[in-house]
Amino acid sequence: MALKCFPLSKVYGLLEPGPVVLVTTVGKGRPDIMTMSWHTMVEFEPPLVACIISNRDYSFGLLRAGKECVIAIPTVEIAEKVVGCGNTSGAKLDKFKKFGLTPTPAALVDAPLIAECFANLECRVADTTLVTKYCLFILEVLKAWVDPMVKNPKTLHHLGNDNFMVAGERIKLKSKMK
Amino acid sequence: MALKCFPLSKVYGLLEPGPVVLVTTVGKGRPDIMTMSWHTMVEFEPPLVACIISNRDYSFGLLRAGKECVIAIPTVEIAEKVVGCGNTSGAKLDKFKKFGLTPTPAALVDAPLIAECFANLECRVADTTLVTKYCLFILEVLKAWVDPMVKNPKTLHHLGNDNFMVAGERIKLKSKMK
Repeated sequence: MALKCFPLSKVYGLLEPGPVVLVTTVGKGRPDIMTMSWHTMVEFEPPLVACIISNRDYSFGLLRAGKECVIAIPTVEIAEKVVGCGNTSGAKLDKFKKFGLTPTPAALVDAPLIAECFANLECRVADTTLVTKYCLFILEVLKAWVDPMVKNPKTLHHLGNDNFMVAGERIKLKSKMK
Repeated sequence: MALKCFPLSKVYGLLEPGPVVLVTTVGKGRPDIMTMSWHTMVEFEPPLVACIISNRDYSFGLLRAGKECVIAIPTVEIAEKVVGCGNTSGAKLDKFKKFGLTPTPAALVDAPLIAECFANLECRVADTTLVTKYCLFILEVLKAWVDPMVKNPKTLHHLGNDNFMVAGERIKLKSKMK
């Protein structure tokens, strides 16, 4: 796996289809990982992302304190690890070790990239206006990485509870939408 | 097509996978439709949805003034109509007529449901704090409808420009996540 720098102007195309993502933060002495599905693009460039991280999640405090994270996008090949990260709390567990995921240094933030993910987005908290009311953070993507060998990523999409959809067929439609 | 009332507690499962949606609003003398991909769940129940509607879009003014809309979720069967709604402006065009979509009265809002969509969510604007800065509206879903005949909706997911992904295989993974 060799991650390659990816243009910030194209980041929206990674998140807009709605994949389940992993979010890494830096905790006490070790990084943490959480699983997240509630996110949306807010702006193309610089890319802004809104996401909801529950204040019941261990990552909520880490993100609020550290103000940095990495959004890593997994594919179905590591679905069990993704769900494992969602089913456990980082308060008592080193999830990288537990689920056999590989932390890799990021360029601009302390939170690590996840080597097993085809895309990694280094983020800084840009706006906390709605954190208290809705747990809604606005993140700015500072740097993006993709694995250029992955051409048609089979992302996971959560339908609720145990049910997931895997990215299917790609089609082209004459769209003026960016 | 007979739409059936759908529990508000299950609405998140419709939007969480990240489908392209249509948004109807009420304009001057006729309803309008826009195509939208930038949305996320914010709360389970009552269901809250954050969405970005550009202030360059005709719908932005209609939603800000009327404070109500319907989020309708289409499938690949009407992909051409969905992209057509995204490629045009309602300022000069009746999109329901132009694209052969059928407006159906909603129960609690003036904006219409779209009969050709398998799910329709009646929404009211709940929070405008970030509208000026990011065009980010928070909507509350007041009532939800689904077509019970559609068991495995082939939703559309936008990858940028002309590229779309169609919802693929469904899988089950033992998840503690709601």
